[in-house]
Amino acid sequence: MSAPSAPPTGPLLERYRAGDLRALARAVTLAEAGLDGARPLLRAARQRAARGERAVVLGVTGSPGSGKSTLVDALIAALRARGQRVAVLAVDPSSPYSGGAILGDRIRMLRHHADPGVFVRSLASRGALGGLSERTPGVLALMEGAGFDWVILETVGVGQSEVDIAAACDHTLLVLTPAGGDGVQAFKAGIMEIADVIAVNKADLPGADRTVRELMAAQGLGAHDEHTWFAPIRKTIAAKGEGIDAVIAAVEAHRAHLGEAGLLARREARAEYEVRTLVQERLLRRARAQGRDLYQRVAQGELDAEQAADDLLGAR
Amino acid sequence: MSAPSAPPTGPLLERYRAGDLRALARAVTLAEAGLDGARPLLRAARQRAARGERAVVLGVTGSPGSGKSTLVDALIAALRARGQRVAVLAVDPSSPYSGGAILGDRIRMLRHHADPGVFVRSLASRGALGGLSERTPGVLALMEGAGFDWVILETVGVGQSEVDIAAACDHTLLVLTPAGGDGVQAFKAGIMEIADVIAVNKADLPGADRTVRELMAAQGLGAHDEHTWFAPIRKTIAAKGEGIDAVIAAVEAHRAHLGEAGLLARREARAEYEVRTLVQERLLRRARAQGRDLYQRVAQGELDAEQAADDLLGAR
Repeated sequence: MSAPSAPPTGPLLERYRAGDLRALARAVTLAEAGLDGARPLLRAARQRAARGERAVVLGVTGSPGSGKSTLVDALIAALRARGQRVAVLAVDPSSPYSGGAILGDRIRMLRHHADPGVFVRSLASRGALGGLSERTPGVLALMEGAGFDWVILETVGVGQSEVDIAAACDHTLLVLTPAGGDGVQAFKAGIMEIADVIAVNKADLPGADRTVRELMAAQGLGAHDEHTWFAPIRKTIAAKGEGIDAVIAAVEAHRAHLGEAGLLARREARAEYEVRTLVQERLLRRARAQGRDLYQRVAQGELDAEQAADDLLGAR
Repeated sequence: MSAPSAPPTGPLLERYRAGDLRALARAVTLAEAGLDGARPLLRAARQRAARGERAVVLGVTGSPGSGKSTLVDALIAALRARGQRVAVLAVDPSSPYSGGAILGDRIRMLRHHADPGVFVRSLASRGALGGLSERTPGVLALMEGAGFDWVILETVGVGQSEVDIAAACDHTLLVLTPAGGDGVQAFKAGIMEIADVIAVNKADLPGADRTVRELMAAQGLGAHDEHTWFAPIRKTIAAKGEGIDAVIAAVEAHRAHLGEAGLLARREARAEYEVRTLVQERLLRRARAQGRDLYQRVAQGELDAEQAADDLLGAR
């Protein structure tokens, strides 16, 4: 499948193992395209992680306008100051409306471009609201396997992506703002439940303390016992780099809370999510191969939907 | 599978066909549980729709606090005043946080309880953010097949449900408010693209006209040609019943715009969505039957995720 100009897999694997960032970039491209050339590298990455050489894989989500990208930018700076190497995967929705605005955000990340301790990559989402691409978990694994200390997945917090991000990462950071009753909305929408750490960003706006109090009150309302992890709520002003160390500390505290057993369970759940999305993608291809006829028959009452589902699963 | 007290399927089908609401309630219960007893009724419902005896199947979504439930309430009243029969399916997230608040909303619907022209049913969602239950399309079909003129699906506009609702209905009504830059957020988040009609509710709050202008400007930015449907934007004050007729007219205008061919295409897409969710549910059961072992092996790099996906699809 490899183009004539592509380096052969053997040397690519070696260079990837040695931490060569151009080899990582190539591996990510292969994985994104779902090409078989990525598979030995993915195995190598996962085995390295299974040996305990892991990254902190952090998902960052929040509503548009919460300053998520600025916060990720500030996290990179703070982690670099500690000598940590950071890879970022930014998932852009392919919406014709929002594409432009999000590209603008990405441009800010270019300032880390010359730093070999930072690796930034963008990946399209499955449609505007369709969630993460089925290749996202593989790309995160490749980044981890290249020896980064932190791997950050950033998505716009809409639709399916918000659910997916928690399934694809070790820890989830939810970014809210004091404006527009963000806290109350997150509470009502059930989004709070996916958060391991909450940042109330733009904390210099009025209402920050009230938002923190409301969030804490909401946490107390949920079912909990002595083992429940209450997501630490940290005020940040990402544009000024304020509160970032406290966010990093909260993520590290969550990792300590998980412990080795908890982290393994999360990684198993992440594998489940990965396999599930790959299965869905294969089924979609099968259904397309069958043509429109199947659904037409269901719509007209000629074929039972349950029967159609069984047929699709039986088809090879 | 039927309990001793359940009526036999034959008479149930007859009573359902005759428009008996208790038979509909029983059919919905069977369909929700995925029991085979629902299948003859589902076929009858779909064949009736295929003969052209259709309901206007309207999905209503919007952020928590947008006044969605109040708007649905006002729609019921306005449609009843025109002699139209209305069935409502309200999908509640099973979130421990939000459950209570949403139950409160439901209670308002009880006031239509004595009206035989109104049928209201609640259905749990797949988890707090997990989207509609795979049985939702079947329940909507049963409501339509019982002879209602309008079938309204109401969900909290979060996570996957927002995407699902457009896939499960003929038309989608997006409810926004002037507060908190709702319009700009919808624009940035790509939510606008799923809307066929937009209600700016609570239009007595400051900023309603500005929100309408922003939304219209945003619509102009998207790719469009002379066939593009620009979702009509209507100001409403649902609590006072204001603007509701204009919303109904906009839905009817969208139906006219679709035409017979467009509506058939939507119904085919709805069937596709239904089959797809049923397939996913079956796969989930298969994976559970295989136990945790599969994902553990993927997490530890012993098994390729792609291979695991193939194995799962091959398993019988």
